[in-house]
Amino acid sequence: MGVTITGTGSYIPKGIASNAQFEDHRFFNEDGSSINHDNAVIIEKFKAITGIAERRYITDDLITSDIATYAAQMAIKDAGIDPEELDYLIVAHNYGDVKHGSVQSDTVPSLASRVKHNLKIKNPSCVGYDVLFGCPGWIEGVIQSNAFIASGIAKKCLIIGAEALSRVIDQHDRDSMIYSDGAGAIILETTENDSGILSHISGTYTYDEAHFIYFGKSNNQELTDTRMYIKMYGRKIYEFALNHVPDAMKTCLEKSGIPIDELKKVFIHQANEKMDEAIIKRFYGLYDLKAPEGIMPMTIDKLGNSSVATVPTLYNLVLKGKLEGHQVSKGDVVMFASVGAGMNINAIVYRV
Amino acid sequence: MGVTITGTGSYIPKGIASNAQFEDHRFFNEDGSSINHDNAVIIEKFKAITGIAERRYITDDLITSDIATYAAQMAIKDAGIDPEELDYLIVAHNYGDVKHGSVQSDTVPSLASRVKHNLKIKNPSCVGYDVLFGCPGWIEGVIQSNAFIASGIAKKCLIIGAEALSRVIDQHDRDSMIYSDGAGAIILETTENDSGILSHISGTYTYDEAHFIYFGKSNNQELTDTRMYIKMYGRKIYEFALNHVPDAMKTCLEKSGIPIDELKKVFIHQANEKMDEAIIKRFYGLYDLKAPEGIMPMTIDKLGNSSVATVPTLYNLVLKGKLEGHQVSKGDVVMFASVGAGMNINAIVYRV
Repeated sequence: MGVTITGTGSYIPKGIASNAQFEDHRFFNEDGSSINHDNAVIIEKFKAITGIAERRYITDDLITSDIATYAAQMAIKDAGIDPEELDYLIVAHNYGDVKHGSVQSDTVPSLASRVKHNLKIKNPSCVGYDVLFGCPGWIEGVIQSNAFIASGIAKKCLIIGAEALSRVIDQHDRDSMIYSDGAGAIILETTENDSGILSHISGTYTYDEAHFIYFGKSNNQELTDTRMYIKMYGRKIYEFALNHVPDAMKTCLEKSGIPIDELKKVFIHQANEKMDEAIIKRFYGLYDLKAPEGIMPMTIDKLGNSSVATVPTLYNLVLKGKLEGHQVSKGDVVMFASVGAGMNINAIVYRV
Repeated sequence: MGVTITGTGSYIPKGIASNAQFEDHRFFNEDGSSINHDNAVIIEKFKAITGIAERRYITDDLITSDIATYAAQMAIKDAGIDPEELDYLIVAHNYGDVKHGSVQSDTVPSLASRVKHNLKIKNPSCVGYDVLFGCPGWIEGVIQSNAFIASGIAKKCLIIGAEALSRVIDQHDRDSMIYSDGAGAIILETTENDSGILSHISGTYTYDEAHFIYFGKSNNQELTDTRMYIKMYGRKIYEFALNHVPDAMKTCLEKSGIPIDELKKVFIHQANEKMDEAIIKRFYGLYDLKAPEGIMPMTIDKLGNSSVATVPTLYNLVLKGKLEGHQVSKGDVVMFASVGAGMNINAIVYRV
């Protein structure tokens, strides 16, 4: 018996924004000073570090809860369940619904209530709530669902990660090129087979780290409004992630009792290619090993960083054979891992 | 052995706004039409229905996560625990931190991360996240913590409900007089005595009800900006609450196995005095009983409706003997119940 993922879904927005689209942007440093490079150089450097060539934006008519609904519909269909049987409907996000042209985040009702409404689920015992936990929010929703199932208050849960970062980016900040939109979802339920969650770990680091990712003013000091945008201290985050994520992954793997050589894939939050590569290298280094070829599927080159959506989207794509060169099979042990605003870290070891 | 509340705290903002302060407001109907009454009449009617004579607003220098911190500090001190021992730090809210003069909700990092930072807690295993579940969010956080404890992943949890509705109200809407600011918190942990959570219930109604409470434009159509404010369909909410909350309370009490005559207090969300009185009347009516005198402590006259904060604040005040005519003693069975945006309903039966 295990707590198993029986369905997956994802929504990849139609709008493709290539790096070339940033060539006309006026970028400034955080302190408002000019950057002494042409945009072509800035973009080339950005591409070399993050691995991002293009990212996805939702169309103007959509909001986050819409794409959360699309991913949920796919996961429900994939699992073949009646959505009226769901005990929980959890949406992980960080900025709520921000309509095109609006500066306000709309979080009332919760996105979970909006998605449940969109799905036309009537059963009031399907409890819908939102979890805010930075980029690791989707994994955290899975960990919470696992606890609800273990404690006997749930059997079937729908966990969605959805974000439209395109609605909160400062176009005068180079980091704006990182952010993307997307949604991923799974159905988690008890099944009578050997697959399921083997172990998990979560951590919240706030003493020095709480404001490494924050809401702040535009880098363009000519702007006189007080509008805030998603902002990050990239260097600090990089160091933080390198110092803590590999250890958390190791602790999680040890809790599962699975030897490192049985680990088939690591589905890691698509934050930044160089950072993810450094994390996986250091993780295997803790075992005096080199990271195996193909251990870490990546979508960041084409899909950018869509926050809570990256991990469930990645898993969905690999599971359905839609990411070239990657596959997982029944019985494989994989890991999900994330790091992001909070600063929060989490990981799950899972037998497919 | 029980899952027990070992500490409580609350923060009641210093700023008192009496009904008289609304006398100069220009109120409009939802459709922008004028209201054919003097403000004095509007306010008198409002007072008769909601029971609200005054409400509390935070001072301009504060944000929701600040008052969440104050309530948490009091609960930690009251429980006599080392905050480094906490496994979870959960903040229920609905609008994030909205600075005075800003229209934007700030939710990154999560309010839980901000509170943990403010409390100077270093232990990364104290996992901090936010739950969005309308006004019933604080009770839902308690239910989630109870599941974490039951499943073995937590021993001690801090659950905070905090909101500053004064930052999202439309001064041209009569309903703006309902909303208030506040914060309440508890420590929940396993203890070796008979007190603890006996039963709980949660429900999410979205098919017709998802947008009964929503973010919408000002009633003053002369305003040309697109700013959104907290809005509600009061009549629909009243009917919904009357139709569903008493039944949910009865189901919860039945699950606990406690006979109705052993129930000592009902700590109900301070939404509206007339509505709360109608709920309690119908609840006891389901048992062919009249609601006992003093069963339902109320603070709405002086504290207004502070969303997620009302129930933990009310419990803290009664437990500490600060609400005249009300007390609870060791061994008493009480109920917590709430209804709000989502629409969500929940209840807990608890032995003090």
